[in-house]
Amino acid sequence: MRCKFCESEAYIRLHYPKMLLCREHFIEYFERKVKRTIERYKLLKPDEKILIVISGGKDSAVTAYVLKKLGYNIECLHINLGIGKYSEESEAYAKRQCELIGAKLHIVRVRELLGAGIGELKTRRPTCSYCGITKRYIFNKFAYENGFDAIATGHNLDDEVSFIFSNIMHWNTDYLGKQGPLLPGEGKFVKKVKPLYELTEREVVYYALAVGLEYIVHECPHARGATTIEYKEILNAMEEKKPGTKINFIKGFLRKKHLFERELKEAPLGECKVCGMPAQGEKCSFCRVWGLEEAVGLKIK
Amino acid sequence: MRCKFCESEAYIRLHYPKMLLCREHFIEYFERKVKRTIERYKLLKPDEKILIVISGGKDSAVTAYVLKKLGYNIECLHINLGIGKYSEESEAYAKRQCELIGAKLHIVRVRELLGAGIGELKTRRPTCSYCGITKRYIFNKFAYENGFDAIATGHNLDDEVSFIFSNIMHWNTDYLGKQGPLLPGEGKFVKKVKPLYELTEREVVYYALAVGLEYIVHECPHARGATTIEYKEILNAMEEKKPGTKINFIKGFLRKKHLFERELKEAPLGECKVCGMPAQGEKCSFCRVWGLEEAVGLKIK
Ligand SMILES: [Zn+2]
Ligand SMILES: [Zn+2]
Ligand SMILES: [Zn+2]
Ligand SMILES: [Zn+2]
Repeated sequence: MRCKFCESEAYIRLHYPKMLLCREHFIEYFERKVKRTIERYKLLKPDEKILIVISGGKDSAVTAYVLKKLGYNIECLHINLGIGKYSEESEAYAKRQCELIGAKLHIVRVRELLGAGIGELKTRRPTCSYCGITKRYIFNKFAYENGFDAIATGHNLDDEVSFIFSNIMHWNTDYLGKQGPLLPGEGKFVKKVKPLYELTEREVVYYALAVGLEYIVHECPHARGATTIEYKEILNAMEEKKPGTKINFIKGFLRKKHLFERELKEAPLGECKVCGMPAQGEKCSFCRVWGLEEAVGLKIK
Repeated sequence: MRCKFCESEAYIRLHYPKMLLCREHFIEYFERKVKRTIERYKLLKPDEKILIVISGGKDSAVTAYVLKKLGYNIECLHINLGIGKYSEESEAYAKRQCELIGAKLHIVRVRELLGAGIGELKTRRPTCSYCGITKRYIFNKFAYENGFDAIATGHNLDDEVSFIFSNIMHWNTDYLGKQGPLLPGEGKFVKKVKPLYELTEREVVYYALAVGLEYIVHECPHARGATTIEYKEILNAMEEKKPGTKINFIKGFLRKKHLFERELKEAPLGECKVCGMPAQGEKCSFCRVWGLEEAVGLKIK
């Protein structure tokens, strides 16, 4: 079976739009799609300094790889969560990925920064909850203190669709007003963008393979259950019956997002008395959960 | 396997709440649930005169049967659509059902009223579209002209869930603001209610069987494709994995319905110059689609 555009052997069969592509033409297709996503949603300006949070997984690595190839000014940050062998492996992958990409890599280790790894902290919050708080705080503060204009994350179409689908199924509509490929910066919050917003997980996997990016496939040992994965299965079944379901779902959502924006609570944020970052109460959730009395510094020396 | 409440053999296994019930206790359960639905959503007052549109299928027959048993003042209307053998059979079932129920049955035959059956009209609209317009017009005008306080329809939980789910999947949110178990009457629109709103299709089938209601199972020959049926399959799969998915989905929707109500276009309705019923333009869609120059009368002689 041949590529739609040349005589080469097909490397992937796309279903929407329906076509067979060779390795070269698939790489071209993928990168053009990222470029168009950036243009369509006005994610990035050519001269912006972009931070990419490299987890060791496929999505962030592919994001960094493509942005670099498209000529953007990128640097990478890996947050080592201090979760035993899983974190060691993740860091090793992150390093290898950044070598291949040719991007500068910064590493922040939670254990060094905070004295304990994720999973070792005594708190009533579930591990995944304070892990998320910790990661978001670190990459935002890292970007803010070091003058980055944007943070690019690796969220792909499947992540976004299943997140929105699951929130709709439970009618947790409060979250929906803030979802999308672009979260504009505000105050000490640095702009966040999702360049893989319109690319499926399958396409990301094939792309990583095509350009030779290796990545960690083990899930975090703290990952809870499989609810989002189940939703992904349901959505994959719908996509198979009707190709285009996912992308049309997400585009329809973006058209109707204003319905949920109205519901956003506009609680004005103050400043954390410990670290000075945005906070809803006296302390930000990061300083609260880690019981900090002094701000952590993330400025590059 | 025994009933949860007595020594009798189980007739049905319910999944949410999880229990086995004998025939008698299932009938009791079902009727109590209809009663509570009517109370919770304030669908009907005890003295209201209620019209039930009996199609010959299970849902409307069960609605009429239960409302009658609960002591409501009901009469039934069957609309014969003039679709050959399908409509003949439907009318025969409607008659038999109303005999069993002990309810007065009115019959309006589209061919006698309008000179042609559904499917024979030359129009650019799809058959199912003008069939819907025709049915809704006839039962509303029939109820209005004959002094009914409410129209009860047989929509069950599966119908409602798959309708909302499908509209969400396509983000046709315009329809959602008007969905729910109760559509209040306004002007010449008679109040519409859905007493089976919280009962599943499976429960309705088992109930019909339990009380000896026979019904037509053939689908209308004009029914298009199977999209809603596919959504029902997806929702059934989700329900099986997580019992309660459907009812929680619909309850969550009702809590968040206000988000969609804001989007409703409040185009003030005028009166059809032919029939005097509510219309968006000069003529109502019923008079337009049937090319009427004179109103059809539906007053009982
Ligand atoms: Zn090719
Ligand atoms: Zn703080
Ligand atoms: Zn029993
Ligand atoms: Zn009219």
